[in-house]
Amino acid sequence: MRIDQQEIRELNNPGTDTHKRCLEGLKTVYSESLIERVVNRLSDFQVALPSWALGAGGTRFGRFSYGGEPGSLEQKIEDIGVIHQLTKTAGAVSLHIPWDIPKDVQAVKELADSLGITFDAMNSNTFQDQEGAAESYRYGSLSSVHQAAREQAVEHNIEVIRIGEQLGSGSLTVWLADGANFPGQYNFQTVLKHAEDSLKKIYRELPEDWKLLIEYKPYEPNFYSTVIQDWGTSFMLANACGEKAFTLVDLGHHLPNTNIEQIVATLMSQGKLGGFHFNDSKYGDDDLTVGSVKPYNLFLIFNELVYGMENNPQNPSLAWMIDASHNIKDPLEDLIQSLEAILIAYAQALLVDREALLEAQQGSDVVRCQEILQDAYRTDVRPLLREARLRSGGAMYPLQAYRELKIRKRLIEERGMRVRATGL
Amino acid sequence: MRIDQQEIRELNNPGTDTHKRCLEGLKTVYSESLIERVVNRLSDFQVALPSWALGAGGTRFGRFSYGGEPGSLEQKIEDIGVIHQLTKTAGAVSLHIPWDIPKDVQAVKELADSLGITFDAMNSNTFQDQEGAAESYRYGSLSSVHQAAREQAVEHNIEVIRIGEQLGSGSLTVWLADGANFPGQYNFQTVLKHAEDSLKKIYRELPEDWKLLIEYKPYEPNFYSTVIQDWGTSFMLANACGEKAFTLVDLGHHLPNTNIEQIVATLMSQGKLGGFHFNDSKYGDDDLTVGSVKPYNLFLIFNELVYGMENNPQNPSLAWMIDASHNIKDPLEDLIQSLEAILIAYAQALLVDREALLEAQQGSDVVRCQEILQDAYRTDVRPLLREARLRSGGAMYPLQAYRELKIRKRLIEERGMRVRATGL
Amino acid sequence: MRIDQQEIRELNNPGTDTHKRCLEGLKTVYSESLIERVVNRLSDFQVALPSWALGAGGTRFGRFSYGGEPGSLEQKIEDIGVIHQLTKTAGAVSLHIPWDIPKDVQAVKELADSLGITFDAMNSNTFQDQEGAAESYRYGSLSSVHQAAREQAVEHNIEVIRIGEQLGSGSLTVWLADGANFPGQYNFQTVLKHAEDSLKKIYRELPEDWKLLIEYKPYEPNFYSTVIQDWGTSFMLANACGEKAFTLVDLGHHLPNTNIEQIVATLMSQGKLGGFHFNDSKYGDDDLTVGSVKPYNLFLIFNELVYGMENNPQNPSLAWMIDASHNIKDPLEDLIQSLEAILIAYAQALLVDREALLEAQQGSDVVRCQEILQDAYRTDVRPLLREARLRSGGAMYPLQAYRELKIRKRLIEERGMRVRATGL
Amino acid sequence: MRIDQQEIRELNNPGTDTHKRCLEGLKTVYSESLIERVVNRLSDFQVALPSWALGAGGTRFGRFSYGGEPGSLEQKIEDIGVIHQLTKTAGAVSLHIPWDIPKDVQAVKELADSLGITFDAMNSNTFQDQEGAAESYRYGSLSSVHQAAREQAVEHNIEVIRIGEQLGSGSLTVWLADGANFPGQYNFQTVLKHAEDSLKKIYRELPEDWKLLIEYKPYEPNFYSTVIQDWGTSFMLANACGEKAFTLVDLGHHLPNTNIEQIVATLMSQGKLGGFHFNDSKYGDDDLTVGSVKPYNLFLIFNELVYGMENNPQNPSLAWMIDASHNIKDPLEDLIQSLEAILIAYAQALLVDREALLEAQQGSDVVRCQEILQDAYRTDVRPLLREARLRSGGAMYPLQAYRELKIRKRLIEERGMRVRATGL
Repeated sequence: MRIDQQEIRELNNPGTDTHKRCLEGLKTVYSESLIERVVNRLSDFQVALPSWALGAGGTRFGRFSYGGEPGSLEQKIEDIGVIHQLTKTAGAVSLHIPWDIPKDVQAVKELADSLGITFDAMNSNTFQDQEGAAESYRYGSLSSVHQAAREQAVEHNIEVIRIGEQLGSGSLTVWLADGANFPGQYNFQTVLKHAEDSLKKIYRELPEDWKLLIEYKPYEPNFYSTVIQDWGTSFMLANACGEKAFTLVDLGHHLPNTNIEQIVATLMSQGKLGGFHFNDSKYGDDDLTVGSVKPYNLFLIFNELVYGMENNPQNPSLAWMIDASHNIKDPLEDLIQSLEAILIAYAQALLVDREALLEAQQGSDVVRCQEILQDAYRTDVRPLLREARLRSGGAMYPLQAYRELKIRKRLIEERGMRVRATGL
Repeated sequence: MRIDQQEIRELNNPGTDTHKRCLEGLKTVYSESLIERVVNRLSDFQVALPSWALGAGGTRFGRFSYGGEPGSLEQKIEDIGVIHQLTKTAGAVSLHIPWDIPKDVQAVKELADSLGITFDAMNSNTFQDQEGAAESYRYGSLSSVHQAAREQAVEHNIEVIRIGEQLGSGSLTVWLADGANFPGQYNFQTVLKHAEDSLKKIYRELPEDWKLLIEYKPYEPNFYSTVIQDWGTSFMLANACGEKAFTLVDLGHHLPNTNIEQIVATLMSQGKLGGFHFNDSKYGDDDLTVGSVKPYNLFLIFNELVYGMENNPQNPSLAWMIDASHNIKDPLEDLIQSLEAILIAYAQALLVDREALLEAQQGSDVVRCQEILQDAYRTDVRPLLREARLRSGGAMYPLQAYRELKIRKRLIEERGMRVRATGL
Repeated sequence: MRIDQQEIRELNNPGTDTHKRCLEGLKTVYSESLIERVVNRLSDFQVALPSWALGAGGTRFGRFSYGGEPGSLEQKIEDIGVIHQLTKTAGAVSLHIPWDIPKDVQAVKELADSLGITFDAMNSNTFQDQEGAAESYRYGSLSSVHQAAREQAVEHNIEVIRIGEQLGSGSLTVWLADGANFPGQYNFQTVLKHAEDSLKKIYRELPEDWKLLIEYKPYEPNFYSTVIQDWGTSFMLANACGEKAFTLVDLGHHLPNTNIEQIVATLMSQGKLGGFHFNDSKYGDDDLTVGSVKPYNLFLIFNELVYGMENNPQNPSLAWMIDASHNIKDPLEDLIQSLEAILIAYAQALLVDREALLEAQQGSDVVRCQEILQDAYRTDVRPLLREARLRSGGAMYPLQAYRELKIRKRLIEERGMRVRATGL
Repeated sequence: MRIDQQEIRELNNPGTDTHKRCLEGLKTVYSESLIERVVNRLSDFQVALPSWALGAGGTRFGRFSYGGEPGSLEQKIEDIGVIHQLTKTAGAVSLHIPWDIPKDVQAVKELADSLGITFDAMNSNTFQDQEGAAESYRYGSLSSVHQAAREQAVEHNIEVIRIGEQLGSGSLTVWLADGANFPGQYNFQTVLKHAEDSLKKIYRELPEDWKLLIEYKPYEPNFYSTVIQDWGTSFMLANACGEKAFTLVDLGHHLPNTNIEQIVATLMSQGKLGGFHFNDSKYGDDDLTVGSVKPYNLFLIFNELVYGMENNPQNPSLAWMIDASHNIKDPLEDLIQSLEAILIAYAQALLVDREALLEAQQGSDVVRCQEILQDAYRTDVRPLLREARLRSGGAMYPLQAYRELKIRKRLIEERGMRVRATGL
């Protein structure tokens, strides 16, 4: 399904006056040129949605289905299309293989193209056994002590690259779930070496203009150790692979209290931050809606990202993706809320007075440093988001529009209550 | 399947001499009467195995099946029977409803009885929707804002009590997974009140000699808040229900770094510790083999349990249960390892010189206090476990016996590779 | 020193027009009556500053002094007076004994009175040995196994009550640092019993209209266990003491990831939340400027406080205090930033549309629940704070005013560079 | 003071028979050659004691002094001498400058030499301001935005190297406490660059055969961020410096739940683990007695260390040091307990059947892998420690000997009750 553009315009119209007044209000504090700049940046910013995020998520204790879930890759792309029409920020899809192998590559490309959606990073899966697979990943994949399992996992990743090439993707994200549940289960040095060797084999098959993005995570699904447990390990492996290999940061993949923004800054200073997975969490890899738990932290991270994008030419442009789970919310509404939170944090970071901050830092005026960051953060930047969307033809209030247009109801009518999307 | 007792004897025989020598060795350090006392206590100690623990466990990222999983409640009880024959410590089963509703109560009782297995605490399930249920627990059960969902959950718990009565159980464990994934999702005070009211309704249906065990957990499957988040909340609710209501401690249900042994001591001092779920973890509710990650902590907890059992007549006898998951180990082997770890910690705690400890504590001789605990902990108590098993007809080396008797192979032959046990 | 009121007026004048425009802007979104209500509540809100917070803080690794630190209780009260003049929110002082025993009670009362400052909760200190004390608190105080130490600690608390009575205070805060550094150091049940007995002895000496506030903390300065480790223990002890005893929540006194707002809601539902210590932290009891690390969390806590103040008549009015440390900031600037963050969170919580929230909660519209909270949180409420201050004669921009009036420079001139305030 | 060797012999004599019997007992399980090998390794193992660890430690909340504290560097070395006489494991001292600048280098060397003590890694201090220093480290040292502070800190480190050269030390440990208490306080990339530049300047002054050991720590004394926050950052900086620079691991310097043994294995595989600081903790950098909280974890770490020492020729020999604090224990007793715990973990790790483990790992026999580790861990290895000490002339029971010889009493008589050792 697609939304008629006219419907969006009609929803926007009544609120335009109030919006313009709010936008004017911001000009009492920030210069017109800064506001223009921020609005333009917001319009340009695009976040990939993963193909597995359009259906209901779940926990090991169960899953509560949602009506109207997409039953095919095409329907998933259509769902992203709806979100993109409303938000103008979701112009990319990140495919997960083998959950979403396109049957007709050309048709899928055309569909995506017609919706303004590009193919971002490809994701492989070596943490589950696929029906009929020769080797099990029960004891690991790229780092397994079993050579045949390693080879199968390497082959799978190469296959994912091949599919991605056809679709026009430009990067492969490897999340290596390999790990141990018990002390002694494997030798740390052995599996690390295997992981390095396997990654190098995949790296060799990477097309010239592609990037290899290496994710890290301290625990889950393994609960004693994980082969790539932290940014340091990912960074070391990326260096071992070569200059097209980078570290990917997922917000939920850290130990309690980790200073993630510092990791972001460190990696960008080294030119090794390749991608970013958004979500939020209070305890572990909770995969909650972005910005729903720690919005100030998200702002601080964007503060480093903005700084890096402006000051670290050595770092490539980043692959942005939302990586969340949707246990009790309509997944599309959840994604719309996530996109809003991302843009808010980005806009606030863009408002930081960097010259003043530099001066305060150089004078060790700690109080003022904090004031400068909080001034930007405490600003209500939502008018800037609305303006950006208004200009690009999106909905000023995407969530409200989604509800008023009764999208979920339409999807259920179209697809029924019982379809279950592939994914977790 | 059952093991021929003769097989166990034959496995024990060759090692008896060495065993006796090791046992003698302990007598150079500990008095004969103390050793006798410990061996007797070990023989008496029985831990319930839950009916869902005989099959493979899993995570939200997948599940790797195990051959020979039990396909029925009867087969689950038989599996426990095997473990009990080998260890003489697993003389009870804890049923989970509706996963394991007995079809023929009398037959199940007879089977259990013939294996020396009693029916310990019953467990209800209101964290998953059952096929055809009128109400969904998506937004909670006993604490739900939806009255019909609450009523259904109360009814279910009462049904579980009824089943338990027929089987000869004496307690109901309520793990209330109810919680919120997002700030604002519910009103804390409202759901707490609902939880209290629902628990009181269940409590009213409790047979005279039964106990209600209220579990707590900080997070998972909900990732912002849980209605019964900690021992304080459970304790408050248990007090509100009445004198047959108690708190149940699950080792994995705590925030990072929680001092669990202090909670155990506090609850016992108040006569409100009702039950105990064993497992181990490094990060969260990892549900790993008992003693596989933090054995000293297990010892410290047993140190409090032993103290309480000796000094707190106000506290009832405890319901002991293993509550672990088995992702990559043969579940029966995992349980045997868990039982061994439990007995080791228990034996070490029994060896603590309590008189000397009291004296050292009264003199604030901190160094000596530590020495006394560590003296007991550093002792190799495995000969005591072997002696206890030898006397009760179990296997001196249960895991080794399990392997030499090729139990798993026999189970696969009997049940096949593809059965999947009910449970998570 | 005191600020001439005329100076404040002159600083406010130039910005008044812009301020009024911003305030008008808020009226496009919120009703005039709601705005009036919030402004009035903000004006009424008063937070106590502790007498030890006016000098530089430190860590175990060192302390960096600040010029112009107050050298006497009188100077500390004057410092609070300055902050109160600027913010109109710091109208109370919380004394710490024996650091700040008034020499001339009457003079001190008159001084405070002349500055509009009242005497909030009194704080005792049994975590340090005082010069010449008969008993050491090395191994504990109120819970010590040594009777003489317990008695000395009880006596000290009673003395603090007596001083507080003379000053017009109405509550005693007991932070019991007692704990163990090593397993086995003390018997958990014994020290808990001692703590309870000692608190009851103190409670008995409490004047009729006083409150006893019992603080809890999981660790530090003891690193294995703390006698009152969590809200559950504090709550249990408060119940044991009687209806004038309450739990006090300090934001920094929790294990990683604790859901503090739920604790607040639970305690208020039971009528047992007595006081609140503000600060912020990323790792432990970091004692950082309020709102500097987790402002959304502060808002969520205020959301529960506001709800409780409106719906829990069973709960007493709360003792509010800032309890932070100032290692690298001018303490007065730090406190001004803290007060600002507190008022912002409070204002946002007052803006939450409670009717809509209730409706969304009753319908389990999780997405909308989140929207409602975030709508309030994302609002720039600073104009409301300015308006409140403008009306009460404070500075619209207190921090800016503090700097423009060169207060620190004046204090250094008056007191010198080398004075060191009593405290940590 | 020194212990008369004859006194030790007399204390050992009565227990020798029992000891021999216990040792024989171990031979029923382990081969004589393995036992010989372990005993020899234990005899060879030497751990440095830091010069600041001989006096009482403290927290920010206070410090409880200990009688007989050493008042000079000479007395500190004598204290280490006593511990070394008893344990035969403390044959090195690690000096902290400027707390323990030797006044007469030659005399100090001779004293140490006469006690069998060598000079291990030198420690610099740029986290406190020294009386009369030109620059303050309030806002950082090696990474400060203030060039003069950086230069002073670099100079100080070079001075420490010079002192170390005279004493015969071979390495410099840099613990960089630099960090921020608040978001925005400094620019992450700027301070990281400064730290790198400063370390390189120090590195350039390193004698040919010296090592530079770079410590990391996530937080404290700064509570928002630390410049060298984790092993990844330290490793990156060590690589930037050159092949004589290494990472130093302090057990207490990690976020909750960190898998430290994996970090150890990773660093050794890269030839970059340079040193190791022992202590134990439950919450943060608690600096408790080694092995008092998580002994199994210590064993797992030693398991990796032993593996690395045998299989990683690319890694240098390690600098071992105890880095603990002594708030409520006699520091010498605390250190003796720490040394015992270290040797126990080391002995257990040496008992691990590596061939069997390799085989079990290659077959993914997870249950057996765990059994192999736990078999070693559950063994009571204390007879091996006693044997090693007996052979080298130490005390079989060092703590008991320390008490029977009334060392503390003698030290108090010699030095008085009121001396306060330099240090924290």
